[in-house]
Amino acid sequence: MKTCVRRLLALAAVFQLVLTPFAAQSNVAMLGFSPDASARQRSLEARFDSALTATNLREWMKRLSARPHHLGSPYNKENADFIAAQFKSWGYDTKLERFDVLFPTPKSRLVEMTAPERFTLKLNEPAVDGDATSGQQSEQLPSYNAYSVDGDVTGPLVYVNYGIPADYEELEKRGIDVKGKIVIARYGGSWRGIKPKVAAEHGAIGCIIYSDPRNDGYYQGDVYPKGSYRNENGVQRGSVMDMPLYPGDPLTKGVGAVPDARRIPIKDAPTLTKIPVLPISYGDALPLLRNLNGAVVPESWRGALPITYHFGGNTPTVRIKLEFNWDIKPIYNVIATLSGAERPDQWIIRGNHRDAWVNGAEDPISGLVALMEEARSIGELAKSGWRPKRTIIYAAWDGEEEGLLGSTEWAEQHAAELADKAVAYINTDSNGRGFLGIGGSHTLEKFINQVGRDVPDPQTKLSVWERARANQIVNGSATARNEAMNRGDLRIFPLGSGSDYTPFLQHLGIASLNIGFGGESGGGSYHSVYDSFDHYTRFGDTDFAYGIALAKVCGRATLRLADSDTVPFEFSNFAETVGQYASEVTRLIDSLRDETKASNYAITNNLWTAVQNPKDKLVTPKAKDAVPFVNFAPLQNALLKLQTSAANYKQASAGQPPVAARQAELDQILFKTERSLTRADGLPRRDWFRHQIYAPGFYTGYGVKTLPGMREAIEQRNWKEAEEQIGIAAATIERFAAEIDRASKLYP
Amino acid sequence: MKTCVRRLLALAAVFQLVLTPFAAQSNVAMLGFSPDASARQRSLEARFDSALTATNLREWMKRLSARPHHLGSPYNKENADFIAAQFKSWGYDTKLERFDVLFPTPKSRLVEMTAPERFTLKLNEPAVDGDATSGQQSEQLPSYNAYSVDGDVTGPLVYVNYGIPADYEELEKRGIDVKGKIVIARYGGSWRGIKPKVAAEHGAIGCIIYSDPRNDGYYQGDVYPKGSYRNENGVQRGSVMDMPLYPGDPLTKGVGAVPDARRIPIKDAPTLTKIPVLPISYGDALPLLRNLNGAVVPESWRGALPITYHFGGNTPTVRIKLEFNWDIKPIYNVIATLSGAERPDQWIIRGNHRDAWVNGAEDPISGLVALMEEARSIGELAKSGWRPKRTIIYAAWDGEEEGLLGSTEWAEQHAAELADKAVAYINTDSNGRGFLGIGGSHTLEKFINQVGRDVPDPQTKLSVWERARANQIVNGSATARNEAMNRGDLRIFPLGSGSDYTPFLQHLGIASLNIGFGGESGGGSYHSVYDSFDHYTRFGDTDFAYGIALAKVCGRATLRLADSDTVPFEFSNFAETVGQYASEVTRLIDSLRDETKASNYAITNNLWTAVQNPKDKLVTPKAKDAVPFVNFAPLQNALLKLQTSAANYKQASAGQPPVAARQAELDQILFKTERSLTRADGLPRRDWFRHQIYAPGFYTGYGVKTLPGMREAIEQRNWKEAEEQIGIAAATIERFAAEIDRASKLYP
Repeated sequence: MKTCVRRLLALAAVFQLVLTPFAAQSNVAMLGFSPDASARQRSLEARFDSALTATNLREWMKRLSARPHHLGSPYNKENADFIAAQFKSWGYDTKLERFDVLFPTPKSRLVEMTAPERFTLKLNEPAVDGDATSGQQSEQLPSYNAYSVDGDVTGPLVYVNYGIPADYEELEKRGIDVKGKIVIARYGGSWRGIKPKVAAEHGAIGCIIYSDPRNDGYYQGDVYPKGSYRNENGVQRGSVMDMPLYPGDPLTKGVGAVPDARRIPIKDAPTLTKIPVLPISYGDALPLLRNLNGAVVPESWRGALPITYHFGGNTPTVRIKLEFNWDIKPIYNVIATLSGAERPDQWIIRGNHRDAWVNGAEDPISGLVALMEEARSIGELAKSGWRPKRTIIYAAWDGEEEGLLGSTEWAEQHAAELADKAVAYINTDSNGRGFLGIGGSHTLEKFINQVGRDVPDPQTKLSVWERARANQIVNGSATARNEAMNRGDLRIFPLGSGSDYTPFLQHLGIASLNIGFGGESGGGSYHSVYDSFDHYTRFGDTDFAYGIALAKVCGRATLRLADSDTVPFEFSNFAETVGQYASEVTRLIDSLRDETKASNYAITNNLWTAVQNPKDKLVTPKAKDAVPFVNFAPLQNALLKLQTSAANYKQASAGQPPVAARQAELDQILFKTERSLTRADGLPRRDWFRHQIYAPGFYTGYGVKTLPGMREAIEQRNWKEAEEQIGIAAATIERFAAEIDRASKLYP
Repeated sequence: MKTCVRRLLALAAVFQLVLTPFAAQSNVAMLGFSPDASARQRSLEARFDSALTATNLREWMKRLSARPHHLGSPYNKENADFIAAQFKSWGYDTKLERFDVLFPTPKSRLVEMTAPERFTLKLNEPAVDGDATSGQQSEQLPSYNAYSVDGDVTGPLVYVNYGIPADYEELEKRGIDVKGKIVIARYGGSWRGIKPKVAAEHGAIGCIIYSDPRNDGYYQGDVYPKGSYRNENGVQRGSVMDMPLYPGDPLTKGVGAVPDARRIPIKDAPTLTKIPVLPISYGDALPLLRNLNGAVVPESWRGALPITYHFGGNTPTVRIKLEFNWDIKPIYNVIATLSGAERPDQWIIRGNHRDAWVNGAEDPISGLVALMEEARSIGELAKSGWRPKRTIIYAAWDGEEEGLLGSTEWAEQHAAELADKAVAYINTDSNGRGFLGIGGSHTLEKFINQVGRDVPDPQTKLSVWERARANQIVNGSATARNEAMNRGDLRIFPLGSGSDYTPFLQHLGIASLNIGFGGESGGGSYHSVYDSFDHYTRFGDTDFAYGIALAKVCGRATLRLADSDTVPFEFSNFAETVGQYASEVTRLIDSLRDETKASNYAITNNLWTAVQNPKDKLVTPKAKDAVPFVNFAPLQNALLKLQTSAANYKQASAGQPPVAARQAELDQILFKTERSLTRADGLPRRDWFRHQIYAPGFYTGYGVKTLPGMREAIEQRNWKEAEEQIGIAAATIERFAAEIDRASKLYP
């Protein structure tokens, strides 16, 4: 008896260690499901879970990353065939869909310092001990930036920090001009393609991008192979195509790059860079940076090399000589379909790319193997007699690294059908250990929060949702902490670009999600030869436990989207979120007004001259136009309407189910609400991007701009366009609200 | 005619370049002067200015920094005699005042890494090319921290970042204990003496402090001799005496260290460190830091060495062996007096220290030579027949570097007389090029703002005040910018410690100012052998133009304080400022309450366990007491009273001058208002510090704490003491307000 009491107390102490031991929320009805259907679905999910096996992920990763498998390489095609065969064996109707895309590869690469002394850069990533694939030089793509133009340029070098517009404002203040010069920018601060784009806009003739150790080298952690981080030889490859204009094949904007597609001449392709650009390692960068002359850069520009960072401008002189093979190459998307039993014309699309820069164990294989295991387990369910209500399509995209080529060409090729049928697109890419992170359409926010609450975390006894929330409370900012403690749902982040959701979400207006785990993996192998199976299994999700967790989250999301009675869209969270974005934009113009006022005061009163150190050669900036007040009323009225419509739908959908005969019609209205957030004319100066709520920034690249039309007009001080775009956004939101109202009417 | 118009237009264009070309504000009456007296004073100041000569500063600096002149050294005494002779020749009644103080110097110094391999640190600053004095090794004090105890300790090394209390909280979270270990801290983040103090509180047995290149090495700029910044061999000497307890001779707290003063035994001196501590260069630190094992430190802990920074804790093992000569040495203050003609018992004291760690061209000679030139010019005025109304005392303090020894012993020795007679103390120390910076008593804020408006900047056509304001607008935070644009006076900062004002302001309650220029000089020579004439004349105030500007500001301040009809104290700015401090403290406790609530939520709900990476060994911190609401009403009522009294005085003093017969009485009341801000019992646990508005932080060292009693009680979560200290502060402010009321009544 005594020992029993003791034991119970000990158990109680153990239970105290966790707030809410994980248990599927079996008593909570799922969005779009009746309580009974919810229970049935949860039992289906339990069967789905039980088939998931981590060793599959490990074996597939080992196989798929065994050799370099970039676009057009022999092993890329082998992988496509292997993946397709797997899907077939799991019962999917599987095919390879081919497109022919422009894909430049290096013919010759040379960077040398020509003065004060001659020095030629190595441009080489050597094999390292304990990494079995790092020495496969004959098959590796050399380090380069895809879609750089050819060139042979020589000029003095200027350090431009991240090479974003604000950095050029700083240079201008210092009287430093990059015209006719070569710039060297560090990775970080923006998507890489912005760096040569902005450099060319300012008259530079060449661009070098290097990986500063501050970004992902020894400043962050021990370097490979001792630790995971980038060593002095590691180079980040990557595309520099002007994706904020449009992604996909540069020659076939807006249409699938099928053999007979109309192609523009290469010389006219607007998404190629204007100047030659090449990425280098910090080992190669150090001699260049050490020789820069001129003033010392401001603190926010300094990296972690053991030198004083200078602007340069005269010394050293550098030559870049680049020549590419401008080939048209085939790409192969693996498309695997499991037809829906009840509503086959409603498609749930689930994708991850399969091509890599080199061996790509982490990027993209870590995400791809989770997708495959998820598809295999769903295949098992199907073999046992279950069928989804709606059609499920699995995609393993090719050519993502070069500019979302596979997904974009496919989405453009099937645009009409997708516009009609696509319910949602769920994307994954690289995956790691740690915390659930979700971006996407806020009409799916409540839905994906429910999913996260039902998936156990591999390392704790919590759900992955609870662990993410705990992280926000323990490690988040005061705002994030308060929100996590007080908002029912975790906030999902808006999507910019950088993976295959872009053509679905931002071109076609298909509600999308992008899902992954991270925060506890060691980084530093990104787009280098060291992104290998050996690296991933030492520093990534070593036991593939989070690969399985990812399969559970995305598999559940796919199954629920496919099986729900009514597609699980919800609009209150969306209304609240767009309201926040609108507040941000109004605060943005207000703070811009204050800053402009103070800055103009300083300029017109010659305070710049007053504070100048005579040793410096500061240039007083030009005074800017005063920031006017613009009319936000149309937007605010539209938001009011949206809130009302969302609340009405919530009330309507909480009661009796919709009239059965109109179920399919209701689904159509609901999943097409996202289409109403697009506009055929697209965004100003980039009509391919049609979504009016989310877009990659014109000057940030991957970084998102919400309410992009009005926000970027304000950022770029185009007040007339800002007013126009406010009107367009308001009309968009009103159209969206009207669709919600239509849906509400289909409930009894 | 045509050319004339053109010329006028050209002139107009030139004038547009500056907002307000400098002109002494001849039509503005000075605080404490009638309009007529103001005009006379300005003409006196013009004569004062005209005698100032930059070549004197240069010659004196060259002479005074020609050899090492630390406390007790032969050249220190030579300098004292030289300075005294100069003052005598300028007509001052001059003497050397001697005190005998405890001054430890190194007998032996050894730091070695004993495992994983044996390595002995160099502990040596070699001579560099182009620096004539850097090789004077026989006279140089070796690099060390004064008032470290002797010791011979060996233990594993732990990196503790800045070594402040927050850093030990981080270590505790990581499960890293420093008990029985040696810590290595980087300079910065606090005054150096805090580092061994907090290390010892946590059980460490030894402490190494090193200069990370991020702080003042190549991260900031090119290193010496190419640039001004600290090279790999540069070491920052400095005192580690527990000055926040009390400064001055450790053996004679509160009394002058005259020959027959009562001295406590060395072993009982509470301001010596508890553990041995030594400063080293980053060249010496690198092998130690490179060998640290354990987890990677958080981003805010990382320096600029080309390594991954780890916590350590097991490897490497380090030995520190230190032995000192514990001598009593004489120090010599130069005290030079010019007696007042009308009110000789009202003293204006003006000081700068004269001792250095080594050659000390910048610290302190750059400030001292400005003081000397200022005194010389005032001496010239006196020789021409002018006499100040009040007595002016110039002081060149000895032993400042070791712990404000000269100024503190003098202030303690003359405490009674100073309490009765001292109107104000004006301090300077190192000086550089750039922007006027002022700290001090806010009862003198309006006065010193007026002074700044009347001194021309050497580089622009503005006053030094306007240039400082321009800098705040162009380079300041949004708050600083708004304030500079909208507040009439520039805000002076409150004084913590770090120079000789401390005994005057915080022990005796004498209104004080600390004045200097900076922002355009290259740093990095601080307390090293490289703080030399060659360094200063290349990277500091190369032509001594700002030395002259400093003489103009401080000379004017001294002359106006000495000559004004009524001492120029003003109370509205003080009232507003103390109101701000009170708001800060109330916000502090509110934010502490919110943070504690969220943190306790995370702790009691085991969120720490939830977010833990199993690879780490995070320790959940203990929940803290909830933060109560405390009663600020007494303080708020006292502030109301203060505002009223200040406004009444403003009104009273704006009218007719005070009754002539009571002028001296009015002066006494006014300059003694600062005394009423002190309290005989001092601050909790450190009774030497008597000022209730300004104090150096108990855990920040030089860093100021305003309203220190209540603020530190809250920071240290002592709620009972916080309530008591609010009461004490309220009573202090009420006493102060009552003194203002007494002064107001002396106006007709």
